[in-house]
Amino acid sequence: MTLAVDPARLWNRLHDLAAIGAYRDEHTGLMGVNRLALTDTDAAGRALVKRWFEEAGLAVRVDRIGNVYARRRGLDESLAPVVAGSHIDSVPTGGAFDGCLGVLGALEGVRALDDAGVVTRRPIELGFFTDEEGCRFGTDMLGSAVACGRIPLEVAWALRDRDGKTVKEELARIGFLGDAEERVAAPHAYVELHIEQGPVLAAEGFELGVVTGVQAISWQELTIVGKSAHAGTTPMHLRRDAGFAAARIHLHLHEMIESGRYGADMRATMGRIEPAPNRINVVPGRTVCTVDLRNPDDHAMAAAERELAAFVRALGDELQLAIETRQTARTASIAFSGDVQEVIARHMREAGVHHRRIQSGAGHDAQEFAAKCPTAMIFVPGEYDGISHNPREYSTLEACARGATTLLRTMVTLAS
Amino acid sequence: MTLAVDPARLWNRLHDLAAIGAYRDEHTGLMGVNRLALTDTDAAGRALVKRWFEEAGLAVRVDRIGNVYARRRGLDESLAPVVAGSHIDSVPTGGAFDGCLGVLGALEGVRALDDAGVVTRRPIELGFFTDEEGCRFGTDMLGSAVACGRIPLEVAWALRDRDGKTVKEELARIGFLGDAEERVAAPHAYVELHIEQGPVLAAEGFELGVVTGVQAISWQELTIVGKSAHAGTTPMHLRRDAGFAAARIHLHLHEMIESGRYGADMRATMGRIEPAPNRINVVPGRTVCTVDLRNPDDHAMAAAERELAAFVRALGDELQLAIETRQTARTASIAFSGDVQEVIARHMREAGVHHRRIQSGAGHDAQEFAAKCPTAMIFVPGEYDGISHNPREYSTLEACARGATTLLRTMVTLAS
Repeated sequence: MTLAVDPARLWNRLHDLAAIGAYRDEHTGLMGVNRLALTDTDAAGRALVKRWFEEAGLAVRVDRIGNVYARRRGLDESLAPVVAGSHIDSVPTGGAFDGCLGVLGALEGVRALDDAGVVTRRPIELGFFTDEEGCRFGTDMLGSAVACGRIPLEVAWALRDRDGKTVKEELARIGFLGDAEERVAAPHAYVELHIEQGPVLAAEGFELGVVTGVQAISWQELTIVGKSAHAGTTPMHLRRDAGFAAARIHLHLHEMIESGRYGADMRATMGRIEPAPNRINVVPGRTVCTVDLRNPDDHAMAAAERELAAFVRALGDELQLAIETRQTARTASIAFSGDVQEVIARHMREAGVHHRRIQSGAGHDAQEFAAKCPTAMIFVPGEYDGISHNPREYSTLEACARGATTLLRTMVTLAS
Repeated sequence: MTLAVDPARLWNRLHDLAAIGAYRDEHTGLMGVNRLALTDTDAAGRALVKRWFEEAGLAVRVDRIGNVYARRRGLDESLAPVVAGSHIDSVPTGGAFDGCLGVLGALEGVRALDDAGVVTRRPIELGFFTDEEGCRFGTDMLGSAVACGRIPLEVAWALRDRDGKTVKEELARIGFLGDAEERVAAPHAYVELHIEQGPVLAAEGFELGVVTGVQAISWQELTIVGKSAHAGTTPMHLRRDAGFAAARIHLHLHEMIESGRYGADMRATMGRIEPAPNRINVVPGRTVCTVDLRNPDDHAMAAAERELAAFVRALGDELQLAIETRQTARTASIAFSGDVQEVIARHMREAGVHHRRIQSGAGHDAQEFAAKCPTAMIFVPGEYDGISHNPREYSTLEACARGATTLLRTMVTLAS
């Protein structure tokens, strides 16, 4: 007997959940999902998935940060469970797959076990975690970070949204301020199925990915202050052009990458550029821009940050500009368990699934669990260059089912 | 007897006129001027200056585009007049000197002639021209362009502001739709006194400037379309980064200048940069940016435009981006009369005024008159790096009076 997830059931679940918070994107006409954490729509989504957990005969508990767990008994209940989780909150302009695929894929895996009459040695726990996106309260992976001990409960509870509402108030208001202990005892292992949210697997023709870890992230906001001046009357040598400085920094980031000094997987992005006054005939007196650096190697990341800081200092002197740098985010790289990766890879090999190892470019709940127990992830390729956080986000039924079946088999192996 | 303008009278005139449309700038607390063309405040300013012209015994006429002329009789009324003019409309955030110094400086010159009992051989005409700034109806130098034949009256009349009001309607509403012929017969010469609106004279310690001409201006708006992508998950080689293309173009503009290929006076500015979606962790899929090129040499300007276009084409191919270029403004360079410049320079030399020849970086009514008659301008240095179109705009009483006296003596020489 070969265990497999029912593709149609998974597909229907994904679409039923996507109907909650659905909206029509005004540019593309596509249906998107807006299920921001701890809103009424998030509450409706939570209630639906919780009901599905209960209908599958699972024992559901809600913890004090609103994480929802569903437990399937094992033959030996004294053993630590295998946990498979993700999230069901979305960014304001999200799609149907981000997070939800991992939660509903795991649920359909459990149902496949029920259909096949399989009971594992260890218990299996499914979970979805509060505010993974961080869009509303400013801290991503919030629920899993509390569960795994990185963020204290009281700190998480006190976070406020733009309207001044706290996480705790909103949990209570939507009925998801549970009473279960929020800190998890170390599971036996943690596995998470997720869409890649990037173009690599599809571009290279792979069917699935085994995720090796999460790269380090460094976010910086640079405020460059020069002097605004008339574009027609100010000679070049008398200018202190803040916009030109941003362009120089942008070019230098690319030179750093091309040099190869920071490894083949370094990424750098200047996503935001805001010159002021932003008029055709005025030399910008001030420019705010951002730098997003990614690197799987912590040492290479630190060295790249140092080079950037030195370049920015020298550039400020050269162009007579004041450049202020504010670090707005910084996380170290996370290496996932080689053993769990190998279990995943073995199931892919056995099923003839064309796969590769891949670093995660985005953050995931799995990185919090990696601090508690052997952890790894499975990536499903996305269409349209893997676009995500967008109504275009899409993975095929076949790809989703292939990923969920791999998750199911991995859970069973780990729980045996 | 040495003719000179009374500094205190000029200063009082400037401040009396600046009180019309005065507002307090919320950032600096400084008083600015908002006297947008053909508004009620412009009408009040026009009425005041017109009354001053009449009080000085001048024959005032208003033409069909709202230009106001004031004529002082000469000994031989059959001869073409010497015209001295500028404008009294302002940008919405203007200062007291831009334009007004030229009009009121010329008026005080005429009063000095009256005080001294001097009658020139040729008549002298003062003038202020409608909507020099172009802020309201989108076309700068509007009144002088109609007067000198570049823009037909009917075209100018039909221009609309954002609310759909036409120039003709607004002229009629404020009582300045005159009946005098709008096309000027060729004057004997045209002279305009104006603030520099740039830092050069002050930075180099000059007291006045003799303006040699107006540089060519080329404005382009570039729309760069690539593909937005996740900054964490998209490898560098799979990106089509529209913001990076803008930075490359910006750097190339500076390389063009540093090469010296387009002369020492070429200027290039990227004043506007608008990446979309403009978020720290998204590779911009689209960026709109602007290029402002200035060059006193038309051939050099055309060659620079060609190089830029070739670079942009090659860059689009290299980075797989679609780059669309829209020319939003283009004027050829204007060379002012060497003879009129020499008359101005001679009066500066005789008065011991430390001066230099200087190209104008901004457009002026004088460039329209240059097509009709020998024309030149006098520049007065500005404080605070010559900032203009801003409440900080400021020139000292001494500098204004020095400029107005030079204008007066130049008018007398030209009218003799």
